[in-house]
Amino acid sequence: MALRAVELIRRKRDGHPLSPDDIRAFIAGYTEGDVPDYQMAAMAMAIFFQGMTPEELAVWTQAMLHSGDLLDLGLPDGAPVIDKHSTGGVGDTISLALAPLAAACGLKVPMISGRGLGHTGGTIDKLESIPGFDAALSTERLRAIVHQHGFVITGQTARLAPADRKLYALRDVTATVMSVPLIASSIMSKKLAEGLSGLVLDVKTGSGAFMADVADAQRLARTMVGIGHDMGVTTHALITNMDQPLGHAIGNAIEVREAIDVLRAEGPEDMTELTLQLATRMLLIAGAAPDVRAAYDTARRALDDGRALACFRRVVEAQGGDPRVVDDPDLLPAAPIAQPWGAPDDGVVARIACDDLGRIAARLGAGRARAGEPIDHAVGLTLHHKVGAPVRRGEPLVTIHAREPAAAEAAALALRDAIEVAPEVATVRPLVLDVIDTP
Amino acid sequence: MALRAVELIRRKRDGHPLSPDDIRAFIAGYTEGDVPDYQMAAMAMAIFFQGMTPEELAVWTQAMLHSGDLLDLGLPDGAPVIDKHSTGGVGDTISLALAPLAAACGLKVPMISGRGLGHTGGTIDKLESIPGFDAALSTERLRAIVHQHGFVITGQTARLAPADRKLYALRDVTATVMSVPLIASSIMSKKLAEGLSGLVLDVKTGSGAFMADVADAQRLARTMVGIGHDMGVTTHALITNMDQPLGHAIGNAIEVREAIDVLRAEGPEDMTELTLQLATRMLLIAGAAPDVRAAYDTARRALDDGRALACFRRVVEAQGGDPRVVDDPDLLPAAPIAQPWGAPDDGVVARIACDDLGRIAARLGAGRARAGEPIDHAVGLTLHHKVGAPVRRGEPLVTIHAREPAAAEAAALALRDAIEVAPEVATVRPLVLDVIDTP
Repeated sequence: MALRAVELIRRKRDGHPLSPDDIRAFIAGYTEGDVPDYQMAAMAMAIFFQGMTPEELAVWTQAMLHSGDLLDLGLPDGAPVIDKHSTGGVGDTISLALAPLAAACGLKVPMISGRGLGHTGGTIDKLESIPGFDAALSTERLRAIVHQHGFVITGQTARLAPADRKLYALRDVTATVMSVPLIASSIMSKKLAEGLSGLVLDVKTGSGAFMADVADAQRLARTMVGIGHDMGVTTHALITNMDQPLGHAIGNAIEVREAIDVLRAEGPEDMTELTLQLATRMLLIAGAAPDVRAAYDTARRALDDGRALACFRRVVEAQGGDPRVVDDPDLLPAAPIAQPWGAPDDGVVARIACDDLGRIAARLGAGRARAGEPIDHAVGLTLHHKVGAPVRRGEPLVTIHAREPAAAEAAALALRDAIEVAPEVATVRPLVLDVIDTP
Repeated sequence: MALRAVELIRRKRDGHPLSPDDIRAFIAGYTEGDVPDYQMAAMAMAIFFQGMTPEELAVWTQAMLHSGDLLDLGLPDGAPVIDKHSTGGVGDTISLALAPLAAACGLKVPMISGRGLGHTGGTIDKLESIPGFDAALSTERLRAIVHQHGFVITGQTARLAPADRKLYALRDVTATVMSVPLIASSIMSKKLAEGLSGLVLDVKTGSGAFMADVADAQRLARTMVGIGHDMGVTTHALITNMDQPLGHAIGNAIEVREAIDVLRAEGPEDMTELTLQLATRMLLIAGAAPDVRAAYDTARRALDDGRALACFRRVVEAQGGDPRVVDDPDLLPAAPIAQPWGAPDDGVVARIACDDLGRIAARLGAGRARAGEPIDHAVGLTLHHKVGAPVRRGEPLVTIHAREPAAAEAAALALRDAIEVAPEVATVRPLVLDVIDTP
C-alpha cells in the first residue's frame, strides 16, 4: 500500500475523487499501520482543501466504521436503538438527562461517550463524579444494562472504529480538525458502530461552539444527515445556539447536579427545553409518536412524573455508582472554596464568553490539558444569571468553586474579560435555530 | 515545540504568513525530531495549497541551510566559487563537462551532487562508472582538490542541509514534491550550503522535465533567483527545452563517454551548446568576462584547446579514478548486448518521449526503483537521431545496451510507444527558451 498511498494522496490533492476500493485500502492500511501517520496527515490536509464528494464520504465513513467491531446489542430487529450526539459545548450536560428520559419513553440508548480535553470534562468525566460509577463496562455488561434499563453511558472501547480513534488523535496535532467531511465521518463512524436504527445530532453554533457560524453548522449537519441516510440510519439534526453556556453549571459534579435537577423537572429552562426537543426527535425517528407535538408531550410526561429520574437512578446503580446521589446531590464531591463573583456594574448581562468560561473552569482543574491527566470533579463555575438578565453592581453573577484560594483569585480575574455587563443587550437568539431532517 | 507546531500548521493552512522566528523554530524542531514527520507532512501539504511569500521562502531556505554545516572551502574572500544546478532531465550529463570547463576558465566549482532515483542514475552514479572513482570524499579531500584543480564532484554528506535531506524523503512519500516553494527552497538550501558566490540554474521544461510547462519553469526559476538574490548569491537561470533527451546517451557509462566527447569538442551539438551557455553564465556571474560574448568565447577556447579535458583528467585521477578512460573511453564498462532498434517507418523523427526512455533505461538496469539499490553502469540507450531527423524504415534509431537478451527485447518493445516517426514534424523549440537573471 505504501507506494499506492502516495498516488491516492496526489489524486485527492489534485481534486480527483477516490474510488471506493482506494478509500477502503487507504483506511485499512492506516488501521493496520501500513499507511504511516505522515501519509494520513498529508491526506487529511489534502481533504481539508479539496473536500470529499458525498459518495467518497459514505465509503470513507463505512471504512472507518468497519475498521473495528460493531456493537451488537442482541436486541430484536426493529428495536428502537436511538442515540444522540452533540458537537460539544461549554456546560452541555444534556446527555445525562436525555438518555434516561428517552429510555423512560421506551427507547434503547447505548450511549458511548468520551472524555474531555481542553475545556471541561466529557460526559464520562462528569459521571465519574458519582462515587463508584464505572464507565469502562464490558460489552456484556453494557448489553445487559441496556436490555434491563433501556440506556447506558460508558466509555469508548478500543475495538469500536479504531481508525477513527487513531485519525482523531492525528488530526488534533496536524491542524486538520476543522474539515467538515473529516468531522462528519469521525462522528458518524463512531456513532454508527453502535448499531443504531436512528440518530439525533445536536450541532452547536455560536461563539462557544466548534462551528461559530450557522451556515457552517448547517453544512456539517446536512453532511452528517446525508451519511446517516446513505447508511440506512434515520438521522435528524438540530442546529442549536451556543452563544452562552447551556444551563448554569460548568464543571463536572456541578453539572451532574444540574442534570439531576432537569430530571426532577427543576432544571434550568434552556437545558430542560433542549433535552425535551432532542427527546422529541428521538421518539419521532423511532416511530414512537405520530408527530412532534405528541412526541414532545410523551417526553414531558416522562420527565414530570419522575420516570426519567427513576431510570437514571437505576442505571447509576447498575453501573456501580452510589444511587443516593440522585436524591441527595450533596453527596457529590464539593470544592472547599465557593467564592462569589459580583457584577462589575449595574446593567444587563450582555455577553458570557463560552470558551473563556470553559478555559477558566479547566484551569480550576475541571478539565485537562493532555489526555490521561486526572481532573478535579468538584471545581468549576456556577452562573447565577444568563445573557439578558438585569443585574446590580456587586450582585453575585458567578460562584467560583475552587480547591485553592489562589486558583479562585485567578478565576475571578479572568472572569472580568469573560462576562460583560452593559446598559443594554442585543437580541438573544432562540435556542433551536434550525432542524435538518433530510440530506 | 509540539504544541506550537499545530498553531503554525493552522496559520499556514489558513493562508497567514509565518514569522521568521516561527519558521526557524519549525525547521529546527523538525531537524531535531521534536516536530514529527506527520506534522511536517501536514505543513508541506498546507504549503502546497497556500504557497509562501518571498519573505517566508527566504527564511525557510536559510533555516534549512543552517540546519547543518556550511561547506568552508578555505578560499580567500571574493574567490569565484560558482556552481550549477539542473532540475534534472533524461540524458543530462552536462555537469561532467561543465565543471571542468568552468574550472579551466579559473572558477572554483565545489559540485556536490546526488544519486538517481526512478530514471537513470544521478551525476554520482555516472561518475562511478569510472573504475576507482571515489564520490564519498571527506571535506578535507574535497577542499584540497578544489584548491588544486578548481573543481570536484562528490556525493552529499549527512552534514549539509540535513533538514532538506529529511524533508525531501518525506515529500516523496506524501505527494508534496510538486510545490514551487518547496522545490526552490530544497535546491537552494543544498546549493547555498556549499558557500557559493554565484549559482547558475538549468531549469528544464518540456515533456521530459519535472516542469512540463514553460510558465511553471519560469515561476520556479524566478523563485530561486529571488532566494539567491535575498541571500547575496548572484543567481541566473536558463530555462531549457527538454522535449527530447539531451545528447544521444541515456545510461551511466555511455553518458560519461558522451561527456568526454563534449570535452574533446566532439560532443553532440545540443549538449555542447548548453554546456557553453551555462559556462558563459558562470563566468559572467563571477565577473570573469565583461559580457556574454566574451564569456562564451572564453569557454569555447578552454574547450577547443583541451584545457577542460585536461582538468577533467586531473580530477578523475585526484578522486581515485582511472584517468586513462579520458583518452580511451573503451575502458569504461560496456554491456554484452548492443542491439540496434530500427525506425518503424520512412519519415521524420517526430517525438522522443523523454520520460519513457528514462524508464526503459532504468528497467535495463541503469536506474534504481529504491534508494540504495545497485545500478548497472554499462546498460542504457544510445539515440542515433534526434527529433527532426529524416530516417528510412529499418535504419537504426537506437542502440539498446543490455545485460540479457530478454531485457533487450523488452526495451525494444517499449521503444515502439516512446519514439514516433511521422511524415512531418512540428517546429522544434530552441534549446534555451529564456534567461532569468533578476528576481
